[in-house]
Amino acid sequence: MDIDAVNALPYEDFVDVFGNVVEKCPIVAAAVWSTRPFASLNALEAAVSEFIDALPESGKEGILRCHPDLAGRDLQRGTLTRESRGEQAQAGLDALEPAEMSRMARLNGEYKERFGFPFVICARMCDKANILQQLSERCRNERAAERARGVEEVKKIGRLRLQGLVLTGSPNKL
Amino acid sequence: MDIDAVNALPYEDFVDVFGNVVEKCPIVAAAVWSTRPFASLNALEAAVSEFIDALPESGKEGILRCHPDLAGRDLQRGTLTRESRGEQAQAGLDALEPAEMSRMARLNGEYKERFGFPFVICARMCDKANILQQLSERCRNERAAERARGVEEVKKIGRLRLQGLVLTGSPNKL
Repeated sequence: MDIDAVNALPYEDFVDVFGNVVEKCPIVAAAVWSTRPFASLNALEAAVSEFIDALPESGKEGILRCHPDLAGRDLQRGTLTRESRGEQAQAGLDALEPAEMSRMARLNGEYKERFGFPFVICARMCDKANILQQLSERCRNERAAERARGVEEVKKIGRLRLQGLVLTGSPNKL
Repeated sequence: MDIDAVNALPYEDFVDVFGNVVEKCPIVAAAVWSTRPFASLNALEAAVSEFIDALPESGKEGILRCHPDLAGRDLQRGTLTRESRGEQAQAGLDALEPAEMSRMARLNGEYKERFGFPFVICARMCDKANILQQLSERCRNERAAERARGVEEVKKIGRLRLQGLVLTGSPNKL
């Protein structure tokens, strides 16, 4: 799908295709449609980032809270979004040893207790050992720094999802 | 569920319960959780309104674009959210005569073509004749006025959904 095809999409199709670029936040795609036409894929990525940056801090935390735990409840129940399921599987999170699983659950719990939002990381850029290490380290950050870090990870995840949809021609639902 | 019970909810449960107070925008509930504790149901309603008001104009349009057409594709396919299904049924939109159905489809199309977002109205406060009349009239508004009007309707819908969840004790998914 080239950028002209993206720009030609009515909002309903645009939201169908790009609605989960930011996890469970179709409002982001639905909002950036207002700023089309996009000169390039990079311009579309930038519009997503700018929309997120323009949100109040509570809105940024809201985006983080729409993300599932890694190797958590939604993975076990089979209720992950398609994108998250693929990303968590790619990082090996759907095949943890029992000891890894319990360590992940404990650290996820500590992180959420401390910050009031879940640990978000671009899993496709990591393996499970790396994820566990970063989760352990990031538990010790300050809240504002960790919120900003989570938002940066949301943008990385979104960039890869966008690239997958536009460049490799694997549209989401069309 | 009294307000103390609402305030005691971890964010995951809060988003499970209130995530569709604004249609397909769980980010709103996930964001206002940051501003708890709420003194009352009115304070929770006000927090939702304030979050929406603080969005950039593109974000307000984004919220509107997350709403389904009335008597549209999602109703026919059975893909409405539970809340929207109930509200559209209550207004009689699931039992339109063929002539009403085609008038509704034509007017919805004109509205979307003109404004770039769907016609949003608090269907629980209307019947089908009233909805058709307002849709026909609002098609002639200016874009900025109609965006503001749509947002006010989103808030009315959200208020009734919140009241249903908190006052009548019919929680969404808990």
